[in-house]
Amino acid sequence: MRKAQCDERNLSMVMDLYEMTMSNGYFMEECQDAKVVFDVFYRKNPDGGGFSIFAGLDQIVEYIENLHFTEEDVQYLREKQMFSEGFLNYLQNFKFTGDIYALPEGTIMYPGEPILTVVAPLIDAQLIETAILLEINHQSLIATKTRRIVKAAEGRMVSDFGARRAHNMDAAVYGARAALIGGAASTATVLSGQMFDMPISGTMAHSWVMFFDDEYTAFKKFAEIYPDNSILLVDTYDVLDSGVPNAIRVAKEVLEPMGKRLKGIRLDSGDLAYLSKKARKMLDDAGLTDAIIVASNSLDEYTIRSLVDQGACIDSFGVGERLITSKSEPVFGAVYKLAAVYKDGEYIPKIKVSENVEKITNPGWKRLYRVYDQNHKAIADVLACPDEYLEDLHELDVVDPMKPWKKRRFENCDFVLLQKPIFKDGKLVADRKTVHEISEYVRQQLDTEIWEEEQRFENPHMHYLDMTKKYYKMKTDLLESVRS
Amino acid sequence: MRKAQCDERNLSMVMDLYEMTMSNGYFMEECQDAKVVFDVFYRKNPDGGGFSIFAGLDQIVEYIENLHFTEEDVQYLREKQMFSEGFLNYLQNFKFTGDIYALPEGTIMYPGEPILTVVAPLIDAQLIETAILLEINHQSLIATKTRRIVKAAEGRMVSDFGARRAHNMDAAVYGARAALIGGAASTATVLSGQMFDMPISGTMAHSWVMFFDDEYTAFKKFAEIYPDNSILLVDTYDVLDSGVPNAIRVAKEVLEPMGKRLKGIRLDSGDLAYLSKKARKMLDDAGLTDAIIVASNSLDEYTIRSLVDQGACIDSFGVGERLITSKSEPVFGAVYKLAAVYKDGEYIPKIKVSENVEKITNPGWKRLYRVYDQNHKAIADVLACPDEYLEDLHELDVVDPMKPWKKRRFENCDFVLLQKPIFKDGKLVADRKTVHEISEYVRQQLDTEIWEEEQRFENPHMHYLDMTKKYYKMKTDLLESVRS
Repeated sequence: MRKAQCDERNLSMVMDLYEMTMSNGYFMEECQDAKVVFDVFYRKNPDGGGFSIFAGLDQIVEYIENLHFTEEDVQYLREKQMFSEGFLNYLQNFKFTGDIYALPEGTIMYPGEPILTVVAPLIDAQLIETAILLEINHQSLIATKTRRIVKAAEGRMVSDFGARRAHNMDAAVYGARAALIGGAASTATVLSGQMFDMPISGTMAHSWVMFFDDEYTAFKKFAEIYPDNSILLVDTYDVLDSGVPNAIRVAKEVLEPMGKRLKGIRLDSGDLAYLSKKARKMLDDAGLTDAIIVASNSLDEYTIRSLVDQGACIDSFGVGERLITSKSEPVFGAVYKLAAVYKDGEYIPKIKVSENVEKITNPGWKRLYRVYDQNHKAIADVLACPDEYLEDLHELDVVDPMKPWKKRRFENCDFVLLQKPIFKDGKLVADRKTVHEISEYVRQQLDTEIWEEEQRFENPHMHYLDMTKKYYKMKTDLLESVRS
Repeated sequence: MRKAQCDERNLSMVMDLYEMTMSNGYFMEECQDAKVVFDVFYRKNPDGGGFSIFAGLDQIVEYIENLHFTEEDVQYLREKQMFSEGFLNYLQNFKFTGDIYALPEGTIMYPGEPILTVVAPLIDAQLIETAILLEINHQSLIATKTRRIVKAAEGRMVSDFGARRAHNMDAAVYGARAALIGGAASTATVLSGQMFDMPISGTMAHSWVMFFDDEYTAFKKFAEIYPDNSILLVDTYDVLDSGVPNAIRVAKEVLEPMGKRLKGIRLDSGDLAYLSKKARKMLDDAGLTDAIIVASNSLDEYTIRSLVDQGACIDSFGVGERLITSKSEPVFGAVYKLAAVYKDGEYIPKIKVSENVEKITNPGWKRLYRVYDQNHKAIADVLACPDEYLEDLHELDVVDPMKPWKKRRFENCDFVLLQKPIFKDGKLVADRKTVHEISEYVRQQLDTEIWEEEQRFENPHMHYLDMTKKYYKMKTDLLESVRS
């Protein structure tokens, strides 16, 4: 699998031009070897949710490992007449030589915390900004959205049917991967199944039904070819007057004589609550109580919750456009900000102040801990200075930066460092996980560690991102010195 | 350019599983050689607009030309134990052998009309559904959105800054292409510039400003390296107290002694209307009337229109996430529906009725004409039967299918057939256009042919899609025969 899974395109030129012009500038200033720290973080959870799921890391690993500039790339840049010849030669031999730390893929994450940190020579760190952000922004968005949809389905199966409405090929392929991480059971996208060893699923299109002379013939042919796996699409002409009766007739006249059962039907239009109840009764009355009802048609977490609340008889949801584009909130706003610059033996913290308060950064190289109580519930996250090791502590006084006047003390708690090393000196040092392992890790955190109150759709509890007293003082001192 | 422009990935497995299961079924039923007609059409314009822009065709050409299944692909499918060995052998030698007709890329299009039509053997037509839809859906969405943004900017430059928020790599790269088609002047995405020979642009990031010891030094260094192209980002610390004064100082102390002018400044946060007016005055007072002001920060057509209405002093907009994801409406809903099946020497029209009225299809192989009045304004589109040639007519009675009781007659008009042959018997027969030619074609249609009333943001005039009497009768007869 590994070969097919690895994306071997040269994606090195997927970057904003300014990464290149700044890098050329750093090269000309001869500061390309200065070490810097960049943090990736985001400012709010999509859809007003209480958390997000970190996804896309494995594609960042592939991107970093393949990162190089071909002669053709360098020649293209040369023709722009913006770059020094020295820099162009430097690019031709460029390989990423820095360190990358990140949350394990699938980690539940919260606004404001460093989810990935690059500690690298200045140009190495600058050139990878765009690709890292777009991979995290895309896959975290889809994984987080899918989890909302899966939660609304309350145990019913959710499958990704979205490829045709995705924002081009990668959005379909990696979106399906992210959907599985978020809890989807399968995807319809064949290449995703092939690349990531994921379950693939599908039924039939209206074109199958329309191609044959009548609906009964179309259903009969399908059942003969796929006797173990016939889910018949019943809304081409009329669900209750034609589709469901024809499906039942095929179950009786074609499948049962072969010793087979009708697997189910799919509804793709109309009032899904009403039609599913009527269809359920018709199937049950015909003794087909084991036939499942699959529903599709512009579903999302809100329509699914409404269907569940209405007692719709739906066993499985095919979710397309609103999952694969995260329609209600299609932007995940992770950013990449300079946190520190190495100088004279230490990392000097840097801060961006901005005209918008929410755009002020958390400065400095930092350590991110998750705080667990005695029941192993994650009660807060804490930012600490790089020389503060909380691993062996069980109690700690912290500052809530939103309410610094409040004293908060953690007692009888465990502090777990969240970021792990991914690259050291340009070498991959982390084990790569399968999408199934990542998906299971998500499920385990949400089932056991994350408060149910943070998983609500409306007005969820907002996870605390506290600071050690030392870290808080460093930030406020820096802010004051910049403003004065 | 051609080699780099052509996407040589094997994307053949980017499809919904059901394309494959239906195709296997058709193969087993020995009807793979039956000829069919599929239409691509969409049901509504994004953002309540009055039209959309057809984009993505050139990538469909590349996809069709590369379409093949490798031994690895076939082996993957074999392991699923769903497909007959005969079908798997067939796939291994598969090449697309059908015909494809489409609007020229960049054509202004309207809901309900066939924008691309596949006339091909059944399996050929079925296997390409997903890829065709996702390419059209993505690029038409972004081109249409960009046009709205460009219109709001009223002649000021719009550049795509969106890569980092795109839904993965392709969405950034092809999204930038679509943005240019929709009227963007440039993109920040280097690979798009390289692949499509598009203008690339960029300024600097906050990290450049933060890396140096102070803002003035950062600006000075940049101006020394890029004396002809310095757009300085002025909001890292404080726009009016620090950023703009430092930019002016660099213009005076660094650039003017070199005989150069400050190109401009960029605002990326805060109240852009207020800050741009204040900054403009400061620049003007310093004699820098030629320095431009670039603005960015979650812009779209509504924020830009509001800025323009407020008299903001902004010369150029960098538009990111809300363009590259079409945030307000991230789904373009084109579908692919069976229109006819060839049988006994003729194409038998097929119709899908559905539970939702808006999902009823326009049946049959059809001819789509655009009707121009004497001023060469496009006053309606007309669907005709395949044997109705309107090219030489100048008057015609038509039916408005939404108001069939109304008589409508076109007089002194020209009728132009919109679809052109792209593939014949699997061979490419159309000239491929550059993105610049496509963009110019869009501009020319909107400037000269398309009513201004259809280009309004709110409550635009809805373009008429009429039918010849013969076509209308065919549709209503078919609808009645299916329902009875």
